[in-house]
Amino acid sequence: MSGTLYGIGVGPGDPELITLKALRILQSAPVIAWPAPPEGESLARSIAAPHITHDPVEIAIRMPLEITQFPNRNVYDQAAVEIGKHLSAGQDVAALCEGDPFFYGSFMYLYERVAPNHPVVVVPGISSLMATAAASGGPLSSRNDLLSVVPAPLPEAAISAALQQADSAAIIKVGRHLGKVRNVLETLALFDNARYVEHATMPQESMRPLSDVAGDTAPYFSMILVHKRGEAWR
Amino acid sequence: MSGTLYGIGVGPGDPELITLKALRILQSAPVIAWPAPPEGESLARSIAAPHITHDPVEIAIRMPLEITQFPNRNVYDQAAVEIGKHLSAGQDVAALCEGDPFFYGSFMYLYERVAPNHPVVVVPGISSLMATAAASGGPLSSRNDLLSVVPAPLPEAAISAALQQADSAAIIKVGRHLGKVRNVLETLALFDNARYVEHATMPQESMRPLSDVAGDTAPYFSMILVHKRGEAWR
Repeated sequence: MSGTLYGIGVGPGDPELITLKALRILQSAPVIAWPAPPEGESLARSIAAPHITHDPVEIAIRMPLEITQFPNRNVYDQAAVEIGKHLSAGQDVAALCEGDPFFYGSFMYLYERVAPNHPVVVVPGISSLMATAAASGGPLSSRNDLLSVVPAPLPEAAISAALQQADSAAIIKVGRHLGKVRNVLETLALFDNARYVEHATMPQESMRPLSDVAGDTAPYFSMILVHKRGEAWR
Repeated sequence: MSGTLYGIGVGPGDPELITLKALRILQSAPVIAWPAPPEGESLARSIAAPHITHDPVEIAIRMPLEITQFPNRNVYDQAAVEIGKHLSAGQDVAALCEGDPFFYGSFMYLYERVAPNHPVVVVPGISSLMATAAASGGPLSSRNDLLSVVPAPLPEAAISAALQQADSAAIIKVGRHLGKVRNVLETLALFDNARYVEHATMPQESMRPLSDVAGDTAPYFSMILVHKRGEAWR
């Protein structure tokens, strides 16, 4: 009997934003796996840390974290082999995922490698998208809004086209693309509608109008919400 | 001292998909409020029911549920007055929201009415978007995908334009618009990439390719995910 690989969303940062289901699976899994930078702490593990009380076997999946860098396949191949050994021995493995596993998450690289051979279950988590909206003081989308999630590394023309079409947008992966995003929003006369949120649900959470944000770079954990109706509930 | 209005996401259906934070607030609130149809059960309350063990005062906000119908302002005006009385008396009120409060949620109608006079805190929840992706067997979005959430009541041309631009799309509020959506997907040669999910995380959850779905209507709790790369992780 194979064990099951669970991809569990641990939420956006506040350890209290984990679901009961994710908590139950986390606390009963004999093996946990988590993504981490080449050296140092795993954010996903640090979010889950207050809940890990049972001394599981731990598998670190260490990957470069740069926004623009796509995954090194060897790292995931190796992680899948290691996880597969535990699954084949009948042990469940809980893979911890920041936010939600299937919303721009690296869990899919494990999923595609493990799912052909073992049961895989995804437990959804609170994504940065919902956490940011909650912190922003206004709805993400309503009624029949076309809502688009726009990665800031896209070319300026693609960002502009997406923002022109959507009623509401969440611009993610802002980082060093803040200047470009600001230009697009100014050109489209959407700048005054943009709400900037950093580190949603984390202790250092900060929300302000984009017009109050200086410089051309933003932290990794930042997002810009913009709604054409300004206050979406009007 | 005013009480606080908490908008708490109770998640998409499975009572275990509530967060620890939402649970804590729900179980300590002396007053809870929930949306419901004109007669009968509230879905949000039924999701939360296993967790309500403390006999709170309950405020029903009864609204027509038709997908195309926008809210009756009087109902929310009246609910805000009733909730405001408890807040002014120093009592916290937990408003239960299906999924996430700010993702196409009716909570915004309370928010706009109450926030000018009392503290309001939004506790994000697992949205139907993430629940559907988890059930669908593949990522919602990855890398630098442009992800769009497309309400099916939009005109066919708007749906088509959105799907042409996006890399990945979630088509929501399908209901009686299934035939129209199917036509658009066929015209754009995206039909074979479409995954249909009904009642994600509920006991009657069902996932299948859209090509296996007959008829021109779908349940309220259904969603279609479509990704241009087919399997998003490739």
